[in-house]
Amino acid sequence: MTSATRKIEPEPGARERLLTAALTLFNEKGYAAASVREIVEAAGVTKPVLYYYFGNKEGIYLELMQNSYGTFESLAARSVSVEASAQERILQFCSDLFDASLERLPEVRLIYAIYFGPPQGAPQFDLEAYFIRMMELIHRLVSAGVASGELRENSVDGARAVIAILTSAINEQLSGRESKLDRDGMVRLLRLLMRGMAK
Amino acid sequence: MTSATRKIEPEPGARERLLTAALTLFNEKGYAAASVREIVEAAGVTKPVLYYYFGNKEGIYLELMQNSYGTFESLAARSVSVEASAQERILQFCSDLFDASLERLPEVRLIYAIYFGPPQGAPQFDLEAYFIRMMELIHRLVSAGVASGELRENSVDGARAVIAILTSAINEQLSGRESKLDRDGMVRLLRLLMRGMAK
Repeated sequence: MTSATRKIEPEPGARERLLTAALTLFNEKGYAAASVREIVEAAGVTKPVLYYYFGNKEGIYLELMQNSYGTFESLAARSVSVEASAQERILQFCSDLFDASLERLPEVRLIYAIYFGPPQGAPQFDLEAYFIRMMELIHRLVSAGVASGELRENSVDGARAVIAILTSAINEQLSGRESKLDRDGMVRLLRLLMRGMAK
Repeated sequence: MTSATRKIEPEPGARERLLTAALTLFNEKGYAAASVREIVEAAGVTKPVLYYYFGNKEGIYLELMQNSYGTFESLAARSVSVEASAQERILQFCSDLFDASLERLPEVRLIYAIYFGPPQGAPQFDLEAYFIRMMELIHRLVSAGVASGELRENSVDGARAVIAILTSAINEQLSGRESKLDRDGMVRLLRLLMRGMAK
């Protein structure tokens, strides 16, 4: 940080406005095409304010990604502590993650665009971590169901099938379709699957 | 087409080389950032050859998209004519589509990048058509199973759950994970689901 940027007094709300503006522009134009100038203009601040909070465009991108992963992680940690049958815990975890994704759809869209799209020069962020963590948690829930005699083996296949329905329901929220699968629909699909997984 | 381009003699293989080069560059750099100059250089031809075959960059993109959809469509039409139980026909259709996707992974990647990513100025191509056609076909197979007493209602939920597992298995091929769900794995997951869908 230069001595010029150190003198800036943080503006109230500027940090949040910058994050929102960057997220919108990364989604509309792509990471590479969105410029610092456009981001600060959309946020109604000057460039040094962005440099003060985030260092550069890479910094604001990484902050967005870390925030999203942080939300996912705290949700994941919470859902697993609920006491209920394995099937109910799986439904609860999937419903919570579905709701959180709907609330943060622009973040989900950016993650998908970076995951499936061209690299665009965006800094490296481990997006596989979402899948790995989801697999870890859902596999634990399915394994508990297998141990208690509620569900049949194989727990890895069961967990993969649950994740397929969960992620498919979330993906669908990014589509332009008029009638999208809602949370109740996802729960019905999961119950259909878990009927097949039941002992 | 100008009189200049009409004079070009088509070069053997140039059309295919252009399509391959464009597909690679669209995936590496994004549609917007990939230039006609880069595409013709990668294909080892001159610009007028691209103009002769495709008109412009939009034309080569639309040709790629139409080819992909054409492959999907002919596969879809074929799979459904097989005579077998509803469950076996569903497994056959999903396996065929999985194999075709694996063989044409760069095309699948481009479709995902355009679907989830920023518009990038790429010409409009109806990517929802894939989902709608898949839903139509799988729903028909599930409905036949319901009618014959092989599967339970509700056939729309059943079809959606099948598509979730199929698309999830295809998505996974685009991931950087070391151990990806293969076709046999997908079939196991579908059998797990169909156990829940069985009457």
